[in-house]
Amino acid sequence: MASVRIREAKEGDCGDILRLIRELAEFENLSDQVKISEEALRADGFGENPFYHCLVAEILPASGELLGQGIGSKIIKKVAEVALDKGCSHFRLAVLDWNQRAMDLYKALGARDLTEAEGWHFFCFEGEAMRKLAGK
Amino acid sequence: MASVRIREAKEGDCGDILRLIRELAEFENLSDQVKISEEALRADGFGENPFYHCLVAEILPASGELLGQGIGSKIIKKVAEVALDKGCSHFRLAVLDWNQRAMDLYKALGARDLTEAEGWHFFCFEGEAMRKLAGK
Repeated sequence: MASVRIREAKEGDCGDILRLIRELAEFENLSDQVKISEEALRADGFGENPFYHCLVAEILPASGELLGQGIGSKIIKKVAEVALDKGCSHFRLAVLDWNQRAMDLYKALGARDLTEAEGWHFFCFEGEAMRKLAGK
Repeated sequence: MASVRIREAKEGDCGDILRLIRELAEFENLSDQVKISEEALRADGFGENPFYHCLVAEILPASGELLGQGIGSKIIKKVAEVALDKGCSHFRLAVLDWNQRAMDLYKALGARDLTEAEGWHFFCFEGEAMRKLAGK
């Protein structure tokens, strides 16, 4: 069986992180929304007051084996561990409503769908709308 | 007309911030979800690596005047300004689907409803589910 190690990301992972962001966006049919560069990922995540924290799953596959079993769960478990250590009361994930496999996994792990249960919607301000609001 | 000044929150505002969080939760019929204390608000927002940033609207009402006009827009504009200054490409707000007044305001200011447009759902892990995941 493949061996998986979850660790904190290092600055040198940013190239791989960007590749994975692009692959996820492609799967989500949202590739046009990926505008971030590797340089920005480095600056945002590894400066003095980081904008994001990131975990990386290192996988050592056994010979010829297919990957993908249980890695999502392992990362989510690690997120729960880190969140509790930092004193968080909860954490949230965003998922597209056609991604049944992800939603089934999150529910199986104990998550509640707040959009379904309570009616929460995401509103997003970006680009031109943001500049117009800021008067820039 | 009322005069409004938007400024960064100070640690001494935490009592008022908690009161406003509680009033919002009451309006949202979600009062049972407010578990945070003033002490936690102080620790989370004003330590070395803050978990949140907060803007406060100071209002000086003219005599006998009703409040509420335009304060939401002014805060959102300030958020856009701060976000651009910090190099953000976008920012998001969460809103309940029956809060038509808020949704109308956000749309009028140029936001997109990502839940409606693309199908994004919020999933939330909390309390017992989180501890179970973390094995604690």
